[in-house]
Amino acid sequence: MKNRMGTIWTTVAALSLVFFTACTPAVIEVGSYAEDRARIEDLQARYMFALDYRDLDTYASTFTEDGILDIVGMKWQGREEIKKAIQRPQEAAPEGEEAPAEDQKALYPATGRHNITNIVLKIDGDRATGRAYWFHYGNDNSEREAVLNSYGHYEDEMVKVDGQWLFSKRIIYNEQVAEWIGPSENPCW
Amino acid sequence: MKNRMGTIWTTVAALSLVFFTACTPAVIEVGSYAEDRARIEDLQARYMFALDYRDLDTYASTFTEDGILDIVGMKWQGREEIKKAIQRPQEAAPEGEEAPAEDQKALYPATGRHNITNIVLKIDGDRATGRAYWFHYGNDNSEREAVLNSYGHYEDEMVKVDGQWLFSKRIIYNEQVAEWIGPSENPCW
Amino acid sequence: MKNRMGTIWTTVAALSLVFFTACTPAVIEVGSYAEDRARIEDLQARYMFALDYRDLDTYASTFTEDGILDIVGMKWQGREEIKKAIQRPQEAAPEGEEAPAEDQKALYPATGRHNITNIVLKIDGDRATGRAYWFHYGNDNSEREAVLNSYGHYEDEMVKVDGQWLFSKRIIYNEQVAEWIGPSENPCW
Repeated sequence: MKNRMGTIWTTVAALSLVFFTACTPAVIEVGSYAEDRARIEDLQARYMFALDYRDLDTYASTFTEDGILDIVGMKWQGREEIKKAIQRPQEAAPEGEEAPAEDQKALYPATGRHNITNIVLKIDGDRATGRAYWFHYGNDNSEREAVLNSYGHYEDEMVKVDGQWLFSKRIIYNEQVAEWIGPSENPCW
Repeated sequence: MKNRMGTIWTTVAALSLVFFTACTPAVIEVGSYAEDRARIEDLQARYMFALDYRDLDTYASTFTEDGILDIVGMKWQGREEIKKAIQRPQEAAPEGEEAPAEDQKALYPATGRHNITNIVLKIDGDRATGRAYWFHYGNDNSEREAVLNSYGHYEDEMVKVDGQWLFSKRIIYNEQVAEWIGPSENPCW
Repeated sequence: MKNRMGTIWTTVAALSLVFFTACTPAVIEVGSYAEDRARIEDLQARYMFALDYRDLDTYASTFTEDGILDIVGMKWQGREEIKKAIQRPQEAAPEGEEAPAEDQKALYPATGRHNITNIVLKIDGDRATGRAYWFHYGNDNSEREAVLNSYGHYEDEMVKVDGQWLFSKRIIYNEQVAEWIGPSENPCW
């Protein structure tokens, strides 16, 4: 009887091992990068909508509480600071404002749109490092014609807080302004 | 002996719990958003190829049987209607037509390309809500030069039918036409 | 006692089945397309950074050892050949070179950026077939203005080697050069 009991225990132990080998690591290896990347891509896209539609609260909420926005030299830390930083240039030169009165053709507000492409992501547990391109086009002209007008790249650090990915630091490089251009070396891996 | 048997049963029951906790919910939580998002991104991209290459059957098949295409005011429901709607403007002004005879330089057909970026997706079981940017460039000029010429955004509803994601409704906003411009408020979350 | 032991074995066997049904296939079905697609998207994006920043080693390493780069008619096979092919045009007309001396306004190097969108992927085990759009903009002018200047599409074959996705063949079509334009039929599915 003892032998049989021993056999049962050994079997149960062996099956435990099999299940953990079959299930747990497989789940982590197979599902994890994709899941984190999918959530980060969604964050990156929501950031753009919030920026272009001047939804400042949503924009600020894509950063961690102590997140940093860095436009090469200019830095803002924390959601309130970031919100103010983004608010200011828009107040000075609001995109989406009514066209001037002398402009008879275009009676609807101009818009501007930031796009993200080429997202490279290295994910390590609850931390991620990102690189990506951005470019901007708009129609702030009397014909409401689509015009590409600037581009650059992002260097991002992200963290998962309570299951949600957020920017802990975003550096924005811009190839249209001498002071804001990025490194000449590949910022990726 | 009864005690030992009791211990075995308890152990087996406890292990069951451990395995289900370790495996099943992890699989569902880890894999699901990424998997659905991956399939939807593929749908979004195939839609663009079908549109630009005038593959009308494939284009229509990205919608559900009773799917709706809505270009702000103009609505078409069902694959046949959608196919006709897309076919018509292309017949009237076919992109990709031969360049005019006086044009000696460009002897090959012009093309136009729609691109999608900034895909935001909220997925709830077999239903998804999407927002994304689109822009279009082409080379319909005598030099076959690349020219950006329009942009806007999508507001999508998608459903999973027999394991395949399809558009149940796509609204297309366009910032180059006064009647087709989108809302001024952030259409995202 | 024998009956009870039989019951235990049956239970253990049944649980094994339950665990494998619950865990293993679910992991493979749920996680696989998303995981492979996520890794391939990362590859596609790293390729672009390597290309634009002239990181030739990283660029070549996105191909398999015997990978093929095909620019419609011109073909290079193997990492060394590919590296040389990419190196040459850049030496002849280096993007990022200093602006000419007569140009007083723009004192910083011009840059060019390739972007990928509309990624369509069919994945079958360790092999994948891809289609995607690319476009290029740069600021190689005296004002460092952003200018869209070319576009086309990719037709890719990829393989997973030691867990890493790589290009086994990439064909690049370009709609700005008569000899390099793509097919008129939808290259997708």
